Amino acid sequence: MKLYTSPIAPNPRRVHVFLAEKSLEVERIEIDINAAANREPAFRAINPMGQLPVLELDDGSYLAETMAICRYLEGLQPDPDLLGRDFREAATIEMWNRRMEHEIALAVFASFQMTHEFFAGRVEQVPEFGEVSRRKALSRLEWLDEELCGREFVAGDRFTVADITAVCAIDFGRVVKIRIDDGQKNLARWHATVSARPSVSAG
Amino acid sequence: MKLYTSPIAPNPRRVHVFLAEKSLEVERIEIDINAAANREPAFRAINPMGQLPVLELDDGSYLAETMAICRYLEGLQPDPDLLGRDFREAATIEMWNRRMEHEIALAVFASFQMTHEFFAGRVEQVPEFGEVSRRKALSRLEWLDEELCGREFVAGDRFTVADITAVCAIDFGRVVKIRIDDGQKNLARWHATVSARPSVSAG
Repeated sequence: MKLYTSPIAPNPRRVHVFLAEKSLEVERIEIDINAAANREPAFRAINPMGQLPVLELDDGSYLAETMAICRYLEGLQPDPDLLGRDFREAATIEMWNRRMEHEIALAVFASFQMTHEFFAGRVEQVPEFGEVSRRKALSRLEWLDEELCGREFVAGDRFTVADITAVCAIDFGRVVKIRIDDGQKNLARWHATVSARPSVSAG
Repeated sequence: MKLYTSPIAPNPRRVHVFLAEKSLEVERIEIDINAAANREPAFRAINPMGQLPVLELDDGSYLAETMAICRYLEGLQPDPDLLGRDFREAATIEMWNRRMEHEIALAVFASFQMTHEFFAGRVEQVPEFGEVSRRKALSRLEWLDEELCGREFVAGDRFTVADITAVCAIDFGRVVKIRIDDGQKNLARWHATVSARPSVSAG
Protein backbone atom coordinates (compact mmCIF):
# COMPACT_ATOMS: atom_id res chain seq x y z
CA MET A 1 0.00 0.00 0.00
CA LYS A 2 0.99 3.62 -0.50
CA LEU A 3 -0.46 6.72 1.13
CA TYR A 4 -0.59 9.93 -0.90
CA THR A 5 -0.42 12.51 1.82
CA SER A 6 0.89 15.81 3.16
CA PRO A 7 2.56 16.68 6.47
CA ILE A 8 0.70 19.99 6.76
CA ALA A 9 -2.98 19.21 6.17
CA PRO A 10 -5.51 18.12 8.80
CA ASN A 11 -7.22 15.22 7.01
CA PRO A 12 -3.95 13.45 6.14
CA ARG A 13 -2.97 13.89 9.79
CA ARG A 14 -6.10 11.98 10.85
CA VAL A 15 -4.88 8.98 8.84
CA HIS A 16 -1.32 9.33 10.19
CA VAL A 17 -2.65 9.19 13.75
CA PHE A 18 -4.96 6.26 12.88
CA LEU A 19 -2.01 4.32 11.38
CA ALA A 20 0.18 5.01 14.42
CA GLU A 21 -2.53 3.82 16.81
CA LYS A 22 -2.64 0.57 14.80
CA SER A 23 1.19 0.31 14.67
CA LEU A 24 0.84 0.12 10.89
CA GLU A 25 3.50 1.53 8.60
CA VAL A 26 2.67 2.48 5.03
CA GLU A 27 4.89 3.99 2.37
CA ARG A 28 4.10 7.71 2.08
CA ILE A 29 4.17 9.72 -1.11
CA GLU A 30 4.16 13.41 -0.33
CA ILE A 31 2.06 15.64 -2.57
CA ASP A 32 3.11 19.29 -2.51
CA ILE A 33 -0.15 21.06 -1.75
CA ASN A 34 1.62 24.42 -1.43
CA ALA A 35 2.44 24.08 -5.13
CA ALA A 36 -1.13 22.81 -5.77
CA ALA A 37 0.20 19.47 -7.07
CA ASN A 38 -3.06 17.94 -5.81
CA ARG A 39 -4.97 19.95 -8.40
CA GLU A 40 -2.85 18.82 -11.36
CA PRO A 41 -4.13 16.22 -13.86
CA ALA A 42 -1.58 13.63 -12.65
CA PHE A 43 -3.10 13.66 -9.17
CA ARG A 44 -6.67 14.03 -10.38
CA ALA A 45 -6.23 10.71 -12.17
CA ILE A 46 -5.77 9.26 -8.67
CA ASN A 47 -8.54 11.28 -7.03
CA PRO A 48 -10.81 13.40 -9.24
CA MET A 49 -11.73 15.49 -6.18
CA GLY A 50 -8.10 16.68 -5.96
CA GLN A 51 -7.98 15.93 -2.24
CA LEU A 52 -5.63 14.19 0.17
CA PRO A 53 -5.25 11.62 1.63
CA VAL A 54 -5.56 8.74 -0.86
CA LEU A 55 -4.57 5.15 -0.13
CA GLU A 56 -3.31 3.07 -3.06
CA LEU A 57 -4.14 -0.58 -2.41
CA ASP A 58 -1.96 -3.48 -3.44
CA ASP A 59 -4.30 -4.24 -6.35
CA GLY A 60 -3.57 -0.76 -7.74
CA SER A 61 -6.95 0.74 -6.91
CA TYR A 62 -7.28 4.04 -5.06
CA LEU A 63 -9.27 4.73 -1.94
CA ALA A 64 -10.00 8.38 -1.16
CA GLU A 65 -11.83 10.04 1.75
CA THR A 66 -10.31 9.94 5.22
CA MET A 67 -13.00 7.82 6.86
CA ALA A 68 -13.08 5.31 3.98
CA ILE A 69 -9.33 4.84 4.46
CA CYS A 70 -9.76 4.48 8.22
CA ARG A 71 -12.48 1.88 7.72
CA TYR A 72 -10.20 -0.13 5.43
CA LEU A 73 -7.29 0.07 7.89
CA GLU A 74 -9.60 -1.00 10.74
CA GLY A 75 -10.51 -4.06 8.69
CA LEU A 76 -6.86 -4.88 7.98
CA GLN A 77 -5.80 -4.40 11.57
CA PRO A 78 -8.79 -4.55 13.93
CA ASP A 79 -6.73 -4.13 17.10
CA PRO A 80 -6.90 -1.69 18.86
CA ASP A 81 -10.33 -0.92 17.50
CA LEU A 82 -11.08 2.74 16.91
CA LEU A 83 -14.47 2.43 15.17
CA GLY A 84 -16.34 0.24 17.68
CA ARG A 85 -16.36 -3.33 18.93
CA ASP A 86 -19.92 -4.08 17.83
CA PHE A 87 -22.61 -2.29 15.81
CA ARG A 88 -24.14 -0.61 18.86
CA GLU A 89 -20.84 0.98 19.82
CA ALA A 90 -19.92 1.63 16.18
CA ALA A 91 -23.11 3.67 15.80
CA THR A 92 -22.35 5.77 18.89
CA ILE A 93 -18.79 6.41 17.72
CA GLU A 94 -20.08 7.31 14.25
CA MET A 95 -22.50 9.82 15.81
CA TRP A 96 -19.70 11.52 17.74
CA ASN A 97 -17.26 11.40 14.85
CA ARG A 98 -19.90 13.00 12.60
CA ARG A 99 -20.55 15.70 15.18
CA MET A 100 -16.82 16.45 15.35
CA GLU A 101 -16.77 16.64 11.54
CA HIS A 102 -19.94 18.66 10.99
CA GLU A 103 -19.85 20.98 13.97
CA ILE A 104 -16.11 21.59 14.33
CA ALA A 105 -13.92 20.32 11.47
CA LEU A 106 -16.09 21.62 8.61
CA ALA A 107 -16.49 24.97 10.35
CA VAL A 108 -12.71 25.28 10.90
CA PHE A 109 -11.98 24.27 7.30
CA ALA A 110 -14.60 26.68 5.92
CA SER A 111 -13.09 29.51 7.96
CA PHE A 112 -9.66 28.65 6.48
CA GLN A 113 -10.88 28.15 2.91
CA MET A 114 -12.94 31.31 2.83
CA THR A 115 -10.45 33.70 4.43
CA HIS A 116 -6.86 32.41 4.12
CA GLU A 117 -4.51 33.45 1.32
CA PHE A 118 -3.64 29.76 0.78
CA PHE A 119 -7.02 29.35 -0.95
CA ALA A 120 -7.00 32.67 -2.84
CA GLY A 121 -7.51 31.80 -6.48
CA ARG A 122 -8.16 28.12 -5.65
CA VAL A 123 -11.79 28.52 -4.56
CA GLU A 124 -14.34 31.33 -4.74
CA GLN A 125 -13.71 32.92 -1.37
CA VAL A 126 -16.62 34.45 0.55
CA PRO A 127 -14.89 35.97 3.62
CA GLU A 128 -18.21 36.73 5.33
CA PHE A 129 -19.05 33.02 5.37
CA GLY A 130 -15.56 32.33 6.73
CA GLU A 131 -16.34 34.62 9.66
CA VAL A 132 -19.72 32.96 10.27
CA SER A 133 -17.97 29.58 10.23
CA ARG A 134 -15.29 30.78 12.62
CA ARG A 135 -17.93 31.94 15.11
CA LYS A 136 -19.73 28.60 14.68
CA ALA A 137 -16.53 26.68 15.46
CA LEU A 138 -15.89 28.78 18.57
CA SER A 139 -19.45 28.25 19.82
CA ARG A 140 -19.10 24.50 19.25
CA LEU A 141 -15.91 24.41 21.33
CA GLU A 142 -18.02 25.89 24.16
CA TRP A 143 -20.53 23.10 23.66
CA LEU A 144 -17.85 20.38 23.50
CA ASP A 145 -16.30 21.69 26.72
CA GLU A 146 -19.65 21.10 28.46
CA GLU A 147 -20.04 17.64 26.90
CA LEU A 148 -16.60 16.61 28.14
CA CYS A 149 -17.57 17.46 31.71
CA GLY A 150 -19.01 14.00 32.15
CA ARG A 151 -16.54 11.78 30.34
CA GLU A 152 -12.90 11.38 29.42
CA PHE A 153 -13.11 11.09 25.63
CA VAL A 154 -15.39 12.43 22.91
CA ALA A 155 -17.39 9.22 22.34
CA GLY A 156 -17.18 7.78 25.85
CA ASP A 157 -14.60 6.29 28.18
CA ARG A 158 -11.96 5.37 25.64
CA PHE A 159 -9.98 6.87 22.75
CA THR A 160 -11.66 6.48 19.34
CA VAL A 161 -11.63 7.97 15.85
CA ALA A 162 -13.89 10.77 17.16
CA ASP A 163 -10.98 12.02 19.28
CA ILE A 164 -8.67 11.89 16.25
CA THR A 165 -11.10 13.94 14.17
CA ALA A 166 -11.55 16.48 16.96
CA VAL A 167 -7.88 16.99 17.85
CA CYS A 168 -6.81 17.33 14.21
CA ALA A 169 -9.54 19.89 13.55
CA ILE A 170 -8.88 21.89 16.71
CA ASP A 171 -5.09 21.93 16.25
CA PHE A 172 -5.54 23.08 12.65
CA GLY A 173 -7.83 25.85 13.90
CA ARG A 174 -4.77 27.80 15.05
CA VAL A 175 -4.23 29.04 11.48
CA VAL A 176 -7.52 30.96 11.75
CA LYS A 177 -7.19 31.82 15.45
CA ILE A 178 -9.66 29.19 16.62
CA ARG A 179 -8.28 27.97 19.95
CA ILE A 180 -9.43 26.38 23.17
CA ASP A 181 -10.24 29.17 25.61
CA ASP A 182 -8.57 29.33 29.00
CA GLY A 183 -11.95 28.88 30.65
CA GLN A 184 -12.69 25.62 28.83
CA LYS A 185 -11.21 23.36 31.48
CA ASN A 186 -12.76 20.09 30.31
CA LEU A 187 -11.71 20.65 26.73
CA ALA A 188 -8.19 21.64 27.83
CA ARG A 189 -7.92 18.49 30.01
CA TRP A 190 -9.11 16.32 27.10
CA HIS A 191 -6.70 18.05 24.69
CA ALA A 192 -3.74 17.47 27.03
CA THR A 193 -4.67 13.79 27.46
CA VAL A 194 -5.09 13.16 23.75
CA SER A 195 -2.02 15.19 22.74
CA ALA A 196 0.17 13.12 25.09
CA ARG A 197 -0.45 9.99 22.99
CA PRO A 198 2.59 9.22 20.82
CA SER A 199 0.30 8.85 17.77
CA VAL A 200 -1.02 12.39 18.17
CA SER A 201 2.19 14.14 19.22
CA ALA A 202 4.06 12.62 16.25
CA GLY A 203 1.24 12.96 13.68
CA MET B 1 -37.43 1.99 18.79
CA LYS B 2 -38.84 5.35 17.77
CA LEU B 3 -37.69 7.62 14.97
CA TYR B 4 -37.94 11.39 15.47
CA THR B 5 -38.36 12.57 11.93
CA SER B 6 -39.97 14.84 9.37
CA PRO B 7 -41.64 14.05 6.04
CA ILE B 8 -40.15 17.13 4.34
CA ALA B 9 -36.42 17.07 5.12
CA PRO B 10 -33.72 15.25 3.14
CA ASN B 11 -31.74 13.58 5.93
CA PRO B 12 -34.82 11.99 7.52
CA ARG B 13 -35.75 10.76 4.05
CA ARG B 14 -32.40 8.92 3.82
CA VAL B 15 -33.35 6.93 6.92
CA HIS B 16 -36.88 6.31 5.63
CA VAL B 17 -35.46 4.83 2.42
CA PHE B 18 -32.89 2.80 4.38
CA LEU B 19 -35.64 1.36 6.61
CA ALA B 20 -37.82 0.49 3.62
CA GLU B 21 -34.92 -1.32 1.88
CA LYS B 22 -34.52 -3.38 5.06
CA SER B 23 -38.29 -3.97 5.38
CA LEU B 24 -38.03 -2.54 8.88
CA GLU B 25 -40.87 -0.59 10.44
CA VAL B 26 -40.25 1.84 13.26
CA GLU B 27 -42.68 4.08 15.11
CA ARG B 28 -42.31 7.62 13.81
CA ILE B 29 -42.66 10.77 15.86
CA GLU B 30 -43.04 13.77 13.63
CA ILE B 31 -41.24 16.95 14.67
CA ASP B 32 -42.69 20.10 13.13
CA ILE B 33 -39.62 21.74 11.62
CA ASN B 34 -41.73 24.44 9.98
CA ALA B 35 -42.61 25.58 13.49
CA ALA B 36 -38.93 25.10 14.52
CA ALA B 37 -39.92 22.49 17.12
CA ASN B 38 -36.48 20.93 16.54
CA ARG B 39 -34.86 24.04 18.01
CA GLU B 40 -36.92 24.03 21.21
CA PRO B 41 -35.43 22.87 24.54
CA ALA B 42 -37.64 19.75 24.57
CA PHE B 43 -36.05 18.48 21.37
CA ARG B 44 -32.56 19.72 22.22
CA ALA B 45 -32.70 17.42 25.25
CA ILE B 46 -32.92 14.60 22.69
CA ASN B 47 -30.33 16.03 20.28
CA PRO B 48 -28.38 19.13 21.35
CA MET B 49 -27.62 19.80 17.66
CA GLY B 50 -31.36 20.39 17.08
CA GLN B 51 -31.31 18.17 14.02
CA LEU B 52 -33.37 15.33 12.62
CA PRO B 53 -33.43 12.36 12.37
CA VAL B 54 -32.89 10.83 15.81
CA LEU B 55 -33.45 7.18 16.68
CA GLU B 56 -34.56 6.39 20.22
CA LEU B 57 -33.33 2.92 21.14
CA ASP B 58 -35.21 0.49 23.35
CA ASP B 59 -32.85 1.27 26.25
CA GLY B 60 -33.99 4.92 26.09
CA SER B 61 -30.77 6.29 24.61
CA TYR B 62 -30.77 8.53 21.56
CA LEU B 63 -28.79 8.07 18.38
CA ALA B 64 -28.43 11.11 16.12
CA GLU B 65 -26.70 11.59 12.76
CA THR B 66 -28.14 9.90 9.69
CA MET B 67 -25.20 7.58 9.01
CA ALA B 68 -24.91 6.54 12.66
CA ILE B 69 -28.59 5.52 12.53
CA CYS B 70 -28.04 3.66 9.24
CA ARG B 71 -25.05 1.82 10.73
CA TYR B 72 -27.16 0.72 13.69
CA LEU B 73 -30.00 -0.43 11.44
CA GLU B 74 -27.54 -2.34 9.24
CA GLY B 75 -26.33 -4.17 12.35
CA LEU B 76 -29.89 -4.99 13.44
CA GLN B 77 -30.93 -6.17 9.98
CA PRO B 78 -27.87 -6.97 7.85
CA ASP B 79 -29.88 -8.13 4.86
CA PRO B 80 -29.93 -6.67 2.22
CA ASP B 81 -26.64 -5.03 3.05
CA LEU B 82 -26.31 -1.39 2.02
CA LEU B 83 -22.97 -0.57 3.67
CA GLY B 84 -20.80 -3.38 2.26
CA ARG B 85 -20.37 -7.14 2.60
CA ASP B 86 -16.77 -6.96 3.85
CA PHE B 87 -14.34 -4.22 4.88
CA ARG B 88 -12.93 -3.81 1.36
CA GLU B 89 -16.37 -3.13 -0.10
CA ALA B 90 -17.43 -1.12 2.97
CA ALA B 91 -14.48 1.23 2.38
CA THR B 92 -15.41 1.75 -1.28
CA ILE B 93 -19.04 2.42 -0.40
CA GLU B 94 -17.94 4.82 2.34
CA MET B 95 -15.77 6.70 -0.20
CA TRP B 96 -18.68 7.11 -2.58
CA ASN B 97 -21.16 7.95 0.15
CA ARG B 98 -18.78 10.62 1.47
CA ARG B 99 -18.35 12.05 -2.02
CA MET B 100 -22.13 12.26 -2.40
CA GLU B 101 -22.30 14.01 0.97
CA HIS B 102 -19.40 16.42 0.57
CA GLU B 103 -19.66 17.24 -3.12
CA ILE B 104 -23.43 17.23 -3.60
CA ALA B 105 -25.54 17.04 -0.42
CA LEU B 106 -23.61 19.65 1.60
CA ALA B 107 -23.55 21.99 -1.40
CA VAL B 108 -27.32 21.62 -1.93
CA PHE B 109 -28.01 22.13 1.77
CA ALA B 110 -25.71 25.18 1.95
CA SER B 111 -27.47 26.70 -1.04
CA PHE B 112 -30.81 26.17 0.73
CA GLN B 113 -29.64 27.35 4.16
CA MET B 114 -27.94 30.47 2.85
CA THR B 115 -30.64 31.69 0.46
CA HIS B 116 -34.06 30.26 1.38
CA GLU B 117 -36.57 32.10 3.54
CA PHE B 118 -37.06 28.91 5.59
CA PHE B 119 -33.71 29.62 7.26
CA ALA B 120 -34.12 33.40 7.59
CA GLY B 121 -33.61 34.20 11.26
CA ARG B 122 -32.55 30.61 12.00
CA VAL B 123 -28.96 30.90 10.77
CA GLU B 124 -26.73 33.79 9.69
CA GLN B 125 -27.44 33.75 5.99
CA VAL B 126 -24.67 34.64 3.54
CA PRO B 127 -26.48 34.53 0.16
CA GLU B 128 -23.23 34.87 -1.80
CA PHE B 129 -21.98 31.61 -0.29
CA GLY B 130 -25.34 30.04 -1.18
CA GLU B 131 -24.74 30.96 -4.81
CA VAL B 132 -21.18 29.59 -4.74
CA SER B 133 -22.57 26.37 -3.26
CA ARG B 134 -25.30 26.16 -5.88
CA ARG B 135 -22.74 26.44 -8.69
CA LYS B 136 -20.61 23.81 -6.95
CA ALA B 137 -23.56 21.40 -6.77
CA LEU B 138 -24.35 21.93 -10.46
CA SER B 139 -20.72 21.31 -11.46
CA ARG B 140 -20.67 18.13 -9.36
CA LEU B 141 -23.77 16.84 -11.14
CA GLU B 142 -21.77 17.22 -14.38
CA TRP B 143 -18.98 15.19 -12.81
CA LEU B 144 -21.36 12.52 -11.47
CA ASP B 145 -22.95 12.19 -14.90
CA GLU B 146 -19.52 11.28 -16.31
CA GLU B 147 -18.80 8.87 -13.46
CA LEU B 148 -22.08 7.05 -14.09
CA CYS B 149 -21.12 6.41 -17.70
CA GLY B 150 -19.29 3.26 -16.69
CA ARG B 151 -21.55 1.74 -14.06
CA GLU B 152 -25.14 1.37 -12.97
CA PHE B 153 -25.01 2.72 -9.41
CA VAL B 154 -22.94 5.31 -7.56
CA ALA B 155 -20.62 2.88 -5.74
CA GLY B 156 -20.60 0.09 -8.33
CA ASP B 157 -22.95 -2.52 -9.77
CA ARG B 158 -25.52 -2.57 -7.00
CA PHE B 159 -27.71 -0.24 -4.96
CA THR B 160 -26.09 1.03 -1.74
CA VAL B 161 -26.37 3.82 0.79
CA ALA B 162 -24.40 6.05 -1.60
CA ASP B 163 -27.39 5.98 -3.97
CA ILE B 164 -29.72 6.87 -1.11
CA THR B 165 -27.58 9.87 -0.15
CA ALA B 166 -27.35 11.03 -3.76
CA VAL B 167 -31.01 10.72 -4.68
CA CYS B 168 -32.22 12.43 -1.49
CA ALA B 169 -29.79 15.32 -2.03
CA ILE B 170 -30.60 15.73 -5.71
CA ASP B 171 -34.37 15.53 -5.22
CA PHE B 172 -34.14 18.13 -2.46
CA GLY B 173 -32.13 20.35 -4.81
CA ARG B 174 -35.35 21.31 -6.58
CA VAL B 175 -36.12 23.85 -3.84
CA VAL B 176 -33.08 25.85 -4.97
CA LYS B 177 -33.38 25.03 -8.69
CA ILE B 178 -30.63 22.43 -8.71
CA ARG B 179 -31.77 19.81 -11.18
CA ILE B 180 -30.38 17.14 -13.47
CA ASP B 181 -29.82 18.74 -16.88
CA ASP B 182 -31.42 17.27 -19.99
CA GLY B 183 -27.97 16.54 -21.40
CA GLN B 184 -26.93 14.44 -18.37
CA LYS B 185 -28.08 11.13 -19.81
CA ASN B 186 -26.22 8.85 -17.40
CA LEU B 187 -27.40 10.74 -14.37
CA ALA B 188 -30.98 10.77 -15.70
CA ARG B 189 -30.86 7.01 -16.35
CA TRP B 190 -29.51 6.39 -12.84
CA HIS B 191 -32.14 8.69 -11.31
CA ALA B 192 -34.96 6.87 -13.12
CA THR B 193 -33.64 3.46 -12.00
CA VAL B 194 -33.25 4.50 -8.38
CA SER B 195 -36.54 6.41 -8.24
CA ALA B 196 -38.43 3.33 -9.44
CA ARG B 197 -37.52 1.45 -6.25
CA PRO B 198 -40.50 1.33 -3.87
CA SER B 199 -38.28 2.52 -1.01
CA VAL B 200 -37.34 5.68 -2.89
CA SER B 201 -40.69 6.47 -4.47
CA ALA B 202 -42.46 6.13 -1.12
CA GLY B 203 -39.78 7.84 1.00
